[in-house]
Amino acid sequence: MTSPHAQLLLTPGPLTTTRRTREAMLRDWGSRETDFIDLVASLCGKLLAIINSPGRHVCVPLQGSGTFAVEAAVGTLLPASGKALVLINGAYGRRIAKICQVLKRSYVELTFPEDAPVDPAQVAAKLKEDAVISHVFLIHCETTTGMLNPLQEVAEAVARAERRLVVDAMSSFGALPIDAARTPFEAVIAASGKCLEGVPGMGFILADEKDLLASAGNSHSLALDLTDQYVNLKKTGQWRFTPPTHVLAALHEAVAQFEEEGGQAARFARYSANCDALIDAMDEKGFQRVIARRHQAPIIVTFCAPESPAYHFKTFYEKVRKRGFVLYPGKLTEAETFRVGCIGDVRASDMEAAVRVFDDCLAEMGVQLRGRAGIPLGQ
Amino acid sequence: MTSPHAQLLLTPGPLTTTRRTREAMLRDWGSRETDFIDLVASLCGKLLAIINSPGRHVCVPLQGSGTFAVEAAVGTLLPASGKALVLINGAYGRRIAKICQVLKRSYVELTFPEDAPVDPAQVAAKLKEDAVISHVFLIHCETTTGMLNPLQEVAEAVARAERRLVVDAMSSFGALPIDAARTPFEAVIAASGKCLEGVPGMGFILADEKDLLASAGNSHSLALDLTDQYVNLKKTGQWRFTPPTHVLAALHEAVAQFEEEGGQAARFARYSANCDALIDAMDEKGFQRVIARRHQAPIIVTFCAPESPAYHFKTFYEKVRKRGFVLYPGKLTEAETFRVGCIGDVRASDMEAAVRVFDDCLAEMGVQLRGRAGIPLGQ
Repeated sequence: MTSPHAQLLLTPGPLTTTRRTREAMLRDWGSRETDFIDLVASLCGKLLAIINSPGRHVCVPLQGSGTFAVEAAVGTLLPASGKALVLINGAYGRRIAKICQVLKRSYVELTFPEDAPVDPAQVAAKLKEDAVISHVFLIHCETTTGMLNPLQEVAEAVARAERRLVVDAMSSFGALPIDAARTPFEAVIAASGKCLEGVPGMGFILADEKDLLASAGNSHSLALDLTDQYVNLKKTGQWRFTPPTHVLAALHEAVAQFEEEGGQAARFARYSANCDALIDAMDEKGFQRVIARRHQAPIIVTFCAPESPAYHFKTFYEKVRKRGFVLYPGKLTEAETFRVGCIGDVRASDMEAAVRVFDDCLAEMGVQLRGRAGIPLGQ
Repeated sequence: MTSPHAQLLLTPGPLTTTRRTREAMLRDWGSRETDFIDLVASLCGKLLAIINSPGRHVCVPLQGSGTFAVEAAVGTLLPASGKALVLINGAYGRRIAKICQVLKRSYVELTFPEDAPVDPAQVAAKLKEDAVISHVFLIHCETTTGMLNPLQEVAEAVARAERRLVVDAMSSFGALPIDAARTPFEAVIAASGKCLEGVPGMGFILADEKDLLASAGNSHSLALDLTDQYVNLKKTGQWRFTPPTHVLAALHEAVAQFEEEGGQAARFARYSANCDALIDAMDEKGFQRVIARRHQAPIIVTFCAPESPAYHFKTFYEKVRKRGFVLYPGKLTEAETFRVGCIGDVRASDMEAAVRVFDDCLAEMGVQLRGRAGIPLGQ
């Protein structure tokens, strides 16, 4: 099967969207029009259905990137009198700690190596040790590496300790199972341009309605005040401030396709096939990975840069890009890496084609790989 | 001439964009790709050219709606030790005061009637009286009414008092003249989905570089920290957090059309012709306006609701919408009104067609107008 795209973004969002999703942006919408109000309500209902919320959660869409939604969740849900436990094994965990710091909210970090998942036992111990902690922040899939953190086990530890869990599900939402009926959490945060395969420009928070309403007055910001945004949306059906109308229309169309594909289970299956095809082909060529396969989310895979003086990421990136694939630079603090996303409107055959291109480009650069590696660093 | 649009948004943003602008969203962009970095740099240069900055200002694009950009400017440019003078003659002035309040920044309000422009003499007196005021915030065109505030005179008063001026030019940028070489200001704030005729989803701040860099550490927020956003953009060409790539591509294409049309002078001429056609036709029918013609910006016009028991805004709005025109509700605190935007990809003939539709719809509703009114309230 040949891809219908001139160029494939093997990046973790923005990613490759379908033509149908992009064509949904060919209409202008009045943000206070009945049609648009209906579209927003429909989208919110569909997003809540993805987490199978038994009516406890509500959807608060927000302008901006995913980080805007994360900051809004921290500022709104964590009161000035509260304290956050931030679970860190990559850049996105560190970013939540940074947000707490800028917002002058009390917080403590629990840090794990970048190639190891968050350990629920250590979370439980920390919560036992520090009774002041009110909220725990977890990155479900850490895009820095592609690490899948154990959501269910962490959620259970947090619930047992009677604290609240906020899940940054930015790069997992829609692809990995998140079930509110089974997993206790106060809020889940995600964005339009990730595994739902919309275009970037808005985030959303699925939050416990009671907690959200009780959070009135917490926010450090007007624009990022989720309670205010929700109360107004509930009352009028409208956003407080101009919504990114075209981005919303695209997301609505993307979610329709998500449903047609078979929802989260089908998306998980497709991305898993992409990830398997990628890893198998890359292992075969001799690329080393950072994450053990059992901890690998089928979202993005981190590969170690070839240990060759002939390898330069920029040259490799440009060569690969000219042949139709956009890679993602590494973000590890310790090792030189690059990342390949498995998400978006791509299929296993695309991943295989990409690896053939990587191989050709490295050969052109005179980079030799040892073949049949695949064993993660330090495992 | 017949409009190419199925429906015209006579709203102050989102507004009617050209097909060419929307088609620019049919491509996916990697946000760290060279092509996209070039597009952002090109867009920033074009936005700076519109204010004719003699090299003193820099462009900081930001995710979110215009209000996100306004809050970012307040939080970044106004230090905790500073004090804002907020000039108010409508909802957008009140919103800046609200932002100062939420951000716990010191501020004082100077309020004028909604149908009167800001008075530069009173601004000068206030600055003389209160030496602690460091920054003055002015709404250039107050969308609440359509009022044009006297930017040049206020800027001169602020400069004479050696304070800094921040201009919310949300609904004037690109249509009304703003000349940095002639008008002293620290920053101008605007957004993608207004008179540049892009789609909504991002704002931008054109700020004095020296002041912006000196504002490091002021921000209450990570996402809305303009200094951090600028420093990173300057260093890497990239946004700190995922940009709304499609919205940016649309704005870039919209600005290309703005330049082809003849820039701000041509856009002003077209919007003025729209506004004149609208007002002439509405006066003829007997609608009362709120703003005297000499204070009216050619952006949006506020009309008093007909004084008839048969008139209901919702019915009128729906009838007009079914015939292809989207109106905007009023926002005045004192009187029942509705608003008609003159901006977007619309022409004088569209405005005339709209007024014929208003007339037909009111006749259907059994609403009688007295004919030949047009004299603003209380003038």
